[in-house]
Amino acid sequence: MPAAWLADDTPFRDPADLLLVHDHYITRLLHAQGVPLAALGVGGSTVEPREAWRALCTHWRAFAGTASRIWLTDALADVFGIEETLSTANADATYDAIADQLSRPDFRPRALFERFGIEVLATTDDPLDDLRHHQRLAADPTFSGRVLPTFRPDVYVDPQAPRFAQNVARLVESVEAPLTFAGYLDAIRSQRERFIAQGAVSADHGVIDPYTTTLEGVDAQALFDAAVAGELNEAQAREFRGHMLWQMAAMSVDDGLVMTIHPGVRRNHHTETFQRFGPDTGHDIPLRTEYTDNLRPLLQSFGTARDFHLVLFTIDETVFSRELAPLAGFYPSVYVGAPWWFLDAPDAMARFRGAVSETAGFYRTSGFIDDTRAFLSIPARHDVARRSDASYLAKIVVEGRLPESEAAEVMRDIVGAIPRKVFKL
Amino acid sequence: MPAAWLADDTPFRDPADLLLVHDHYITRLLHAQGVPLAALGVGGSTVEPREAWRALCTHWRAFAGTASRIWLTDALADVFGIEETLSTANADATYDAIADQLSRPDFRPRALFERFGIEVLATTDDPLDDLRHHQRLAADPTFSGRVLPTFRPDVYVDPQAPRFAQNVARLVESVEAPLTFAGYLDAIRSQRERFIAQGAVSADHGVIDPYTTTLEGVDAQALFDAAVAGELNEAQAREFRGHMLWQMAAMSVDDGLVMTIHPGVRRNHHTETFQRFGPDTGHDIPLRTEYTDNLRPLLQSFGTARDFHLVLFTIDETVFSRELAPLAGFYPSVYVGAPWWFLDAPDAMARFRGAVSETAGFYRTSGFIDDTRAFLSIPARHDVARRSDASYLAKIVVEGRLPESEAAEVMRDIVGAIPRKVFKL
Amino acid sequence: MPAAWLADDTPFRDPADLLLVHDHYITRLLHAQGVPLAALGVGGSTVEPREAWRALCTHWRAFAGTASRIWLTDALADVFGIEETLSTANADATYDAIADQLSRPDFRPRALFERFGIEVLATTDDPLDDLRHHQRLAADPTFSGRVLPTFRPDVYVDPQAPRFAQNVARLVESVEAPLTFAGYLDAIRSQRERFIAQGAVSADHGVIDPYTTTLEGVDAQALFDAAVAGELNEAQAREFRGHMLWQMAAMSVDDGLVMTIHPGVRRNHHTETFQRFGPDTGHDIPLRTEYTDNLRPLLQSFGTARDFHLVLFTIDETVFSRELAPLAGFYPSVYVGAPWWFLDAPDAMARFRGAVSETAGFYRTSGFIDDTRAFLSIPARHDVARRSDASYLAKIVVEGRLPESEAAEVMRDIVGAIPRKVFKL
Repeated sequence: MPAAWLADDTPFRDPADLLLVHDHYITRLLHAQGVPLAALGVGGSTVEPREAWRALCTHWRAFAGTASRIWLTDALADVFGIEETLSTANADATYDAIADQLSRPDFRPRALFERFGIEVLATTDDPLDDLRHHQRLAADPTFSGRVLPTFRPDVYVDPQAPRFAQNVARLVESVEAPLTFAGYLDAIRSQRERFIAQGAVSADHGVIDPYTTTLEGVDAQALFDAAVAGELNEAQAREFRGHMLWQMAAMSVDDGLVMTIHPGVRRNHHTETFQRFGPDTGHDIPLRTEYTDNLRPLLQSFGTARDFHLVLFTIDETVFSRELAPLAGFYPSVYVGAPWWFLDAPDAMARFRGAVSETAGFYRTSGFIDDTRAFLSIPARHDVARRSDASYLAKIVVEGRLPESEAAEVMRDIVGAIPRKVFKL
Repeated sequence: MPAAWLADDTPFRDPADLLLVHDHYITRLLHAQGVPLAALGVGGSTVEPREAWRALCTHWRAFAGTASRIWLTDALADVFGIEETLSTANADATYDAIADQLSRPDFRPRALFERFGIEVLATTDDPLDDLRHHQRLAADPTFSGRVLPTFRPDVYVDPQAPRFAQNVARLVESVEAPLTFAGYLDAIRSQRERFIAQGAVSADHGVIDPYTTTLEGVDAQALFDAAVAGELNEAQAREFRGHMLWQMAAMSVDDGLVMTIHPGVRRNHHTETFQRFGPDTGHDIPLRTEYTDNLRPLLQSFGTARDFHLVLFTIDETVFSRELAPLAGFYPSVYVGAPWWFLDAPDAMARFRGAVSETAGFYRTSGFIDDTRAFLSIPARHDVARRSDASYLAKIVVEGRLPESEAAEVMRDIVGAIPRKVFKL
Repeated sequence: MPAAWLADDTPFRDPADLLLVHDHYITRLLHAQGVPLAALGVGGSTVEPREAWRALCTHWRAFAGTASRIWLTDALADVFGIEETLSTANADATYDAIADQLSRPDFRPRALFERFGIEVLATTDDPLDDLRHHQRLAADPTFSGRVLPTFRPDVYVDPQAPRFAQNVARLVESVEAPLTFAGYLDAIRSQRERFIAQGAVSADHGVIDPYTTTLEGVDAQALFDAAVAGELNEAQAREFRGHMLWQMAAMSVDDGLVMTIHPGVRRNHHTETFQRFGPDTGHDIPLRTEYTDNLRPLLQSFGTARDFHLVLFTIDETVFSRELAPLAGFYPSVYVGAPWWFLDAPDAMARFRGAVSETAGFYRTSGFIDDTRAFLSIPARHDVARRSDASYLAKIVVEGRLPESEAAEVMRDIVGAIPRKVFKL
C-alpha cells in the first residue's frame, strides 16, 4: 500500500475499491470467468462499485480452492463481522454492511494498521520518489507504526524498460552527476543513501532472469552509452541488466541494504489488456527460471561477503529443492525467500517447506513476508503462513524427526527472530 | 476405441486382445520386465493370446503401485467378477473365465457401453476419415449413445510428419482446392465443417511443443511451398507448425470447435521398436515443455475471443503451478486439462489439484476426461479421478478452506457441469 | 569410505574427524551459518577437534528439519548411547563421551562394519588405483565383509577435467597401448577387466549432463587428438564427453559392469573456496537436467541389450515423473536410481515414490543405496529409506491400491531382491 494512505489516513472509498479493484488476484479470476476488467473498475475505468461487488458475489464459487477466497473470507469475518458465504442474493446486503463500517473512524488505515498489529510495513518505491509521506509518518507523533521505503530501481537499470534513457537522465541530474557509467553508479549510490536515511532496509529487484555478470570498466561504459542511446540488441541488453544486478549486489555489500530478487515473470502477457488497463492487471505469467549458473558471478564476488544478505524469491517452485536450498545451504549470504505470489497459499507453502527444509533447514529461509496490494488481507496471509509452517513442523514432530520442544522454538523464530535477522530489522 | 467397434457391435476377440495387446501402459511395462513385444501380440505380431495373458499374470507384481494395476483389477472385478490377484497359478483359469464371458451378448461393445453409463464418447479421427461408422451409429435407432468424432489434423499440419506432401495433396483434392496456402486452409476448414456436421465438438492437436507464431501471407505461402516440396530445415519446420497451430486457433474461434493441445512428447524414442512394431508401442517419452512464451502469439490474438475454448494438457507437471494455472486464471479461453497419460493416476492427480487450485480454482480446469485405448478401463479411470478429486476437496474442507456444502457442489460440477461447459456438450 | 580404513582397521581419530570434518552436508550448513570452513578442519586445515565439535553443538538448531540431523541423532543414540539434544552446554561432555568410546576395540571400522550388518560396501575408485587394500581385505581370513571397488573414470573421459592429457597418458602407458583413440579405449577396457577381477560390479559416471552421441571412427580419433592436445572448444568437449558416455555403455554391454550415471551438478560453485579447501566442500549445486533426448543415442544402441543395466540418478526431481519413470517403464536396461544427495531424505523420498511408482512400479527402481562419506550414518540412512518406502506402501494399501500381503512382499524386495538384481550382486 502507498505510504500516503497512512500519512493522510483518509477513509477507504468503498468496498469494491478496498477489497477488489486493486487486487489482481481477484480481478484476473473474475476476468477468466468472463467479467470484463472494465466492469470491475480496473485501470481507472469508471464503474459503479456496487456493480463490481455484485460481480464478485455472483462468481464467488469460482474462488473455491483459491488463496484469495481464504484471505477475503477471513477479512470479511474478522474485520467486518460478515460470516455468510458471498452470493448474488446477499451482494447488496454485504456491500452495505461493509460500506457502513468503512465510514467509521476505526476503519481508517491507521486504525486498521494498529488493529492488525503490524510491526513493520515496507513500501516499494521509485529511487527518485521524494519519500515525503514516509517523512511525514516518521515525524508524526500520533503514529507509532514503522513504515519503511524500499529501493526498487528496475526501470533505471533495465535498458528495455519504458523511457529508460529519460529515467537515467533524471537520475544523474538528481545528484548532478555526469552522464557516464561512473556518474550513473554514483547517482544510484546517492539515492540508496537517501533511502537508508529514511529507514530503508532493503533494495528489491524485479528481473526477467537472475543473470549476473562482471564487466570491465571500458565495456560497461560502452554498453551504458549504447543503452542510453537505445542501441542495445537483446543480448547486449541482457549483459547490461546482468551487470547492473552484480553492481546492485556490490552496493548492498557496501551500504548494507538487504538485496531481494524477484525474477521470472513475463509481465503484461496480453498486450491489448496492458494497453487498455495498464500494468499489474492479472496477466503476468511465470517463466522457468535458473539460479545456479545465472547467480554464480554475483556469488563468486560477494557470496561470502560479511553481512551481505541476498534473499532469493521464485515463482518457479522446481528450484526450491534443486537450486535455492543448496545455494542457501552453503553461502552465508543467501536466504530462500518465502513463497511468493502464485505460491503464497497453503498447499504451495507445504511444498516449499517440504522441498527446502531437508537441505537448508529453517534458518536459511526468510520467514514469511507478504507483498500484497490488498491491505485487508495482511492478517489472513500471515495467519495462513503460520498455520502452514506449524503444520509442517507438527508433521516432522509426529514422524520423530524433531522434538516438539524444539519445533516450538523454531516456530517462534520463523515468525519473529528469522525475518528480523534476515531483513536487518 | 474405434467407432466401428460400436457400429458393428462385434464381440471382443479374446482376453488378451481386449485387455492387454492394445494397452501400451501394460505392454511397455512387461517389455521393461524383459518380455518381448512380439510375445505380447503387439504391432500385429502373431501370438497365442493365452500365452500373452500368462506373461501378464506371471509379471503381475511388476504392476504394484501403477495406475494400470488399479484399472485392470477394477475391470476384472466389476466386469468379469474376478477378485483374485493374478498369478502364474491362476493364469489359465482367469483367461478361461474372461473368454467365456466375452462370448456372451452382454459383453459386446454396445452392452458394455450402456452398462458403463457412458454419456459421450469422442473418438480421434483423421480429417479425411469418411466418418461412416459415426453416421451409422447416429442413424441406428437401436443405439442411443453419443459417439462423436474429433478432428485431429497433426499429419496434415506438421511438415515433418511421414508423407506430409501426399497428405496435403489428398487434403486439397478432397475439396478441389488449389495447392496454395489459402487453398490448404480452405480444405482444412471444409473438413472441420464436415466433422461439425457429424457432431464433432473439438479439434485435438499433438505437437512437440506448443510454439505458435503469426506470419504474413507471403511468408506463409513461401513456407507452405517449401514444406510441400520437402525443403524446410528444422527451424523453418517449427515456424510452419507454429503458424498452423495459430491458424487452428483462428479456425476454432470461427467455427466453435474446442481446441485441445497435447504437447511435449518425444514419439517413438526407440527407432528399432518403432520400425518393427509401429507407433504407440510404449516408448513415447515426455519432454520438458514451455507454454508461457510459446502460446503468447496465439493468446495475444485469440485469448479473449468470445466462446473460444482452449484446453491445455501436459505431461510435464512442473507447468501446472508455474504456467497453466496462471494462464487459465486470466484468459477466459484457457482451461487446464485434466491429468493426462503418465499423470492419469491417484498421486499425480492429487499433485495436479494441489498445484492448480490455489491459483485457478476448480472452474478453470477441464474436469476429468480420459483418452484411453483400453475400453474396459473407462469406469475405473473415472472412478479414480472422482475419488481423487473428492479426496482433495475433503482435505480443504477439513483444513477449513471451503465449507462442506460448497465442496459437495464443486464435486458435482467437476463430474458434470464443468466438462459439459468446457467441451460444449 | 576408503577401503584402507577397513584393511588397516585403524581406530577413528576423534569425534570431529569421524562425524563432522568429512561430512560436507554438515560443514556446508555450518558455513552457511557463518562458521568458517577453516574452523571446522575442512580441506586439511588445522583445528582443535573439540572446537569444531563445539561449533556443531552451538549451531545444532540450524539442522532442525534436515536429513543430517536425523542421521547424526540416530548415530549418536545407537552407536554411542547419547540421547541428549546437542547444545553449547553439553558440547564438551558429548565430545568426551564419544572420544572415550572411539578408543575401544569395538568402535574400530571392522567392528562397526559388522555391527551395522553391512552385506556389501562398494568404494569409488580411480581406474589406475592399484586396489591393494581391496586385495588385502579379500585375502584377509579374519574379515568376512564384501568390499568391492567401483570403476569411476570421470577424469579420464572428460577433456575439461584437470590434467586430462596427463591422465590419458598414464592410462595408455599402464597397458602399454598406443596413444590413439583405439589404444585409449583398449586401456579403459583393460582396467575395467582388472576391476572386475577384483570384484567390481559397476562403473559410475559423474557428468555435467547425460548427453550421449555416436561418432564415426575418424571423427573420434580427431576429437581425441585435439582433446589430448588441449585444443577442444566447449562444444567439442561436450561431443567428446557425450561419445565417451556412449562408449562406456558399449563396454558395460560387453563386460557386464552395471552402468550408473550421476549427472547434473555444477561442481565447486565458489571458486575461492575450491582453491583454498579443495573439492567436495559443500558448494556443488544442482542444475536442471534433461534425459529424454540426451540419452536417446545411447538407448537407441543399447537400450534393449541383453543384461545391460543402466541406473539413472538425479538431483533434479522434476525428471522422476516426466523422464525417468517413462524411460524405465519401457527399456529393460533402465532403472530409476534411489533418491540421491539432496534428495536422500524423508520428504524427498516420499515425493520420489509418488512420482515414479504410478508409471514404473517398484521393480524398475534400484532399491536404496547410499553414497555417503559418513560411515556412521549408514544404518540411519538405510533405516530412513526403509521407513519412507514402508510409509508409501502403507499409504497405497490404506487407499485400496495394493493388498497388504503384496505390499509386504514388495517391501522385502525393495530391501533385498531388487538392489541385488539391479547391481548384479
